[in-house]
Amino acid sequence: MSGNTGLTWRLIEEARARIDGKVHVTPVLTSAALDALAGAQLYFKCENLQTCGAFKARGATNAVFALPDSEARRGVATHSSGNHAAALAHAARLRGVRAHVVMPDNAAAAKSAAVRRYGAEITWCAPTLAARESTLREVIAATGAKLVHPYDDLTVMAGQGTAAVELLEEVADLDLLLCPVGGGGLLSGTAVAAKTLRPGIRVVGVEPAGADDAARSFRTGHIIPSTDPQTIADGLRSSLGERPFAEIRRRVDDIVTVSDEAIVAAMRRLWEVLKIVVEPSGAVPYAALLGGAASLRGTRIGIVLSGGNVDLDRLPWSR
Amino acid sequence: MSGNTGLTWRLIEEARARIDGKVHVTPVLTSAALDALAGAQLYFKCENLQTCGAFKARGATNAVFALPDSEARRGVATHSSGNHAAALAHAARLRGVRAHVVMPDNAAAAKSAAVRRYGAEITWCAPTLAARESTLREVIAATGAKLVHPYDDLTVMAGQGTAAVELLEEVADLDLLLCPVGGGGLLSGTAVAAKTLRPGIRVVGVEPAGADDAARSFRTGHIIPSTDPQTIADGLRSSLGERPFAEIRRRVDDIVTVSDEAIVAAMRRLWEVLKIVVEPSGAVPYAALLGGAASLRGTRIGIVLSGGNVDLDRLPWSR
Repeated sequence: MSGNTGLTWRLIEEARARIDGKVHVTPVLTSAALDALAGAQLYFKCENLQTCGAFKARGATNAVFALPDSEARRGVATHSSGNHAAALAHAARLRGVRAHVVMPDNAAAAKSAAVRRYGAEITWCAPTLAARESTLREVIAATGAKLVHPYDDLTVMAGQGTAAVELLEEVADLDLLLCPVGGGGLLSGTAVAAKTLRPGIRVVGVEPAGADDAARSFRTGHIIPSTDPQTIADGLRSSLGERPFAEIRRRVDDIVTVSDEAIVAAMRRLWEVLKIVVEPSGAVPYAALLGGAASLRGTRIGIVLSGGNVDLDRLPWSR
Repeated sequence: MSGNTGLTWRLIEEARARIDGKVHVTPVLTSAALDALAGAQLYFKCENLQTCGAFKARGATNAVFALPDSEARRGVATHSSGNHAAALAHAARLRGVRAHVVMPDNAAAAKSAAVRRYGAEITWCAPTLAARESTLREVIAATGAKLVHPYDDLTVMAGQGTAAVELLEEVADLDLLLCPVGGGGLLSGTAVAAKTLRPGIRVVGVEPAGADDAARSFRTGHIIPSTDPQTIADGLRSSLGERPFAEIRRRVDDIVTVSDEAIVAAMRRLWEVLKIVVEPSGAVPYAALLGGAASLRGTRIGIVLSGGNVDLDRLPWSR
C-alpha cells in the first residue's frame, strides 16, 4: 500500500482551510475534579458542541465544498440514520445545493426532523443495509447526486482530522489521544493529524465491547465486519471502512473496548462535572479511563468527545 | 451616594488579575440555529462550564484571595444552600484555608456533597433565614472566620463582573447584554464592567415572574424583599442586596420577568441545541428571547448562562 493513496497531512491541511468559518472551532474543556479522579491531566475536545452536534460536520462540510461546481450542482447523497445525514444536509444548504438522504423507515423522528430542518430530501426505505444501499443507488441514478460516504472517503476522513489539529494546537504536549471508533473516519483522521504534529503521541481507539469489530480487525489485520452489534452507543455500530482501516493499521497504537455500563457511567459523569450533553458514543473514550490505569498516572491525555445528539426524553439513567 | 463607595472598574480589574488561572476563562458559544430563531446574533457566555458549575467561583475566589493572610488563616464562612457554598469551599481549599458553611437541614444531598467534597465544614441549622443567620454568627464567633456574603459584597460583585469582561473582549460590539438577577451580584458586576468597556451597551436583568422582587425594586427605586418566591429557578429566589442594588439602579437599563414555563422551555432548547447542561436560573435570560422581539431584530446580544448545577435524576421535563 502506498502512502500516496491514503490520507495525507496535506489533505487535512486543505480540509482545515476549506471548512474554516463554516464549522465551529470547538472549545477544549478541563476539570480539576476529573483530573483528580483520573490521576492525569485530561483535555476534552468538545465536538458535541460542534455544528449539528457532532464532529461529522467537519467531514461532510469538507466533502461538499471540495466538489467542483459541475458536480456540486447535482447535489449530494448518502444513506444514514444518524449524525452524518444531518451534517451533510447542513453542509449542502451552506453551499446552496440539494442533499438527498436515504433513511430507514424506523429512524428516530428526532433524527429525520433534523435532516429535514436543513432542507434535505428524505427517501425512506426498509431498515436493512441492502435496502439502504439499493435505494441510494436509485436516488443517485435519478438525480446525478454525488455520494458522500459517512467515513469510507478520504475527503471526509481529512475533515474529521481537523478536530485533532485544533486540539494539538491548543494543547501541544499530549502523551495520549483517545478517540471513539465506529466506521473509522474520526479515528483515522485523528491518527494522521496527531502523528504528523506530534510523532511521539500515542493514539488509541475506544470501542463498545458489544460492537468490537474494530478491535478484532485491528488484532487480526483484516476487516471483520460488525454483525449484530449490541451497544447503547448508536454511532459506533457500523463496520470499519477500508480507507479508514488502512490508516488505523499504520498509525493507531491500540484499540480497546469498554462495557455499556462504563459508557453510561462516563456519560453521566461528563454531564454532571463538565456540564455538557454528550451522547453515548461520545462518552466512549472517557469510559476507558473510569477504571483508572496506573500506567497513565501523571500523563496528559486528549479525549475527543465526538457528539451530543441524544433524546432528552429517553436518558439512559431515567428508565 | 458617592461612586467611590460602590463597585468600580478598578475593583473588577483587580479581581481579574487575582483570579487569573484559578477559575476558567469560559467559552462563548454561538448557534446559527438559535440565531435564526431569535432573528438576532446571540453570544452565550457559558458560566455553567465554570469551575464548580457556576459564575459564583469568580466572586468567591476573588473574595478569598483578597483577604490578608492574617484574616485568611482564620478561614471563611457563609450560609448558603447553593452554588456560592461550593464556590467558597473550592476557593478556600485553593488558598489552603478552612471554609465553614451553614446549610439548612433540608438542603439537597447533592449540594451538601459538593460542599463537603471541597473540604468545607458544614454546620446544619433549621431551614429559616433567621436560623441560618444566627447559626452563622455563632460559627463566626467561635472560629473568627471571615464572612463572605454571596452577593452583598463589593469584592464578590467585582469577581462576578469578570465574566462580562471576558465576553466583551471576545465579542466587542454587543448591543445588549442579558443577565439573570437574584441577589444582584452578577447583574451589578456585569453592568459596571459592560458600561465601562462599552458605554452604549444596554444591560438588562431577567428574573422569574414568581420571584420578581428585583423588577419591583427597580421600578420603585427601593429594595422590596423577596417574600415566598415561587419559581423553579432556585438560584434566583433571594432578595436584592443593598450594594448590588445601588449599582443596578445606576447602571442597568431594565429588568424584565419571564414565566417558569418559558424558563423550562429555554433550558430544554439550550440543552438540545447548544448541547450544554444549564440550570433553570441559567436559562432565565434566554427565556426572555423565546417570544421574539421585533425591536431586537438584527442586534447582537450577549447572554450570561450563569450555571449548570441540576439534579440529572429530576429534570423538569421528565416528571
